Amino acid sequence: MKKQKISDAVIHRLPRYYRYLDDLHNKGVVRISSNSLGSRMDITASQIRQDLSCFGEFGQQGYGYNVAELRAEIGHILGIDNGHRLIVIGAGHLGHALLQNFDFAKVGFQIDSAFDVSPDLIGTTIRDITIHSMDELDSYVEQYRPDVAVLTVPQSVAQPLADRLIDLGIRGFWNFTNVELSTHVPGVFFENVHFVDTLLTLSYRISRN
Amino acid sequence: MKKQKISDAVIHRLPRYYRYLDDLHNKGVVRISSNSLGSRMDITASQIRQDLSCFGEFGQQGYGYNVAELRAEIGHILGIDNGHRLIVIGAGHLGHALLQNFDFAKVGFQIDSAFDVSPDLIGTTIRDITIHSMDELDSYVEQYRPDVAVLTVPQSVAQPLADRLIDLGIRGFWNFTNVELSTHVPGVFFENVHFVDTLLTLSYRISRN
Repeated sequence: MKKQKISDAVIHRLPRYYRYLDDLHNKGVVRISSNSLGSRMDITASQIRQDLSCFGEFGQQGYGYNVAELRAEIGHILGIDNGHRLIVIGAGHLGHALLQNFDFAKVGFQIDSAFDVSPDLIGTTIRDITIHSMDELDSYVEQYRPDVAVLTVPQSVAQPLADRLIDLGIRGFWNFTNVELSTHVPGVFFENVHFVDTLLTLSYRISRN
Repeated sequence: MKKQKISDAVIHRLPRYYRYLDDLHNKGVVRISSNSLGSRMDITASQIRQDLSCFGEFGQQGYGYNVAELRAEIGHILGIDNGHRLIVIGAGHLGHALLQNFDFAKVGFQIDSAFDVSPDLIGTTIRDITIHSMDELDSYVEQYRPDVAVLTVPQSVAQPLADRLIDLGIRGFWNFTNVELSTHVPGVFFENVHFVDTLLTLSYRISRN
């Protein structure tokens, strides 16, 4: 695999490639041309070829891509075979929805545990995941060393909680709080989920029509 | 304003511009250079200038952008002053979380109503929004003509429900179902929220580190 600096734009397209290829694979499609994949994804064939060239040689002139192989390769690049483990912090409605409906295993994540402050929730389970008290968080993280924390907590506690988890060794945050988290600790990654972006895109499209 | 075909990539960056400018505005920042805005957003200054040039003339050589003005202009381009009205379909955990926590008004949307099939939810309210029976959906939409439907329903009903709503005149769908919806009716827009994309980006980053 080539060693080069991959741009954020390319990195952000990789999950979309994976989703489309996974969907094609599930539909039994065996191969696809970059033109055909591009037209489904609304990007150009040359963009696809250029993006993939950052990671190696894929596809074959005149044949296109083998869907199963390219899906597996991109999954590997994305690290879905690394067995990442995560904890969910905040089991309110959004946390509950994720625990109940989101298919973490499909993208290689294992949910270890969930945490909340509410006495009504502590000790209950959602799809076999027990919700623990936040008082147990530190000792849990020290003992089991999860890779990622999913934050669905109130905005006011987001940054102090992230700081606490970084001190405990967590390096990845899937952040639903809409707070822009930051840290001076190197090697810590925040991925923020901004629901509003897609709603604003929709607003743009219906306004222009 | 120039009339030209705006690329999807530009359209998808507009909400991010709006978010960053709104944040700067809330922090009392009066002006900002394209270099400084670019470094916060992790894109190049020339990309910003090029994106904005699709919509007109903004900023001033040597001064930069007036934050309040540019925020208002981009908000206008995004249609947040158009008073779009929406309904939420599905008041399970995810729908509940959106109704309870998402600041629709901040981006110019008014929630009219919510709908669910569950007898336990019908007639209850979340932040003053009453949850109605799905049986009332058709007559409600015919009478009040909302612009957008937020779909947080099970996957199996997503496409038939969208078809039904399109027949009733709804033209925008904020789709949380992970089903790729489609229609032959022109002028209908789907914006799909794929939680998994950001989780896979995070997976990539922690795997590479």
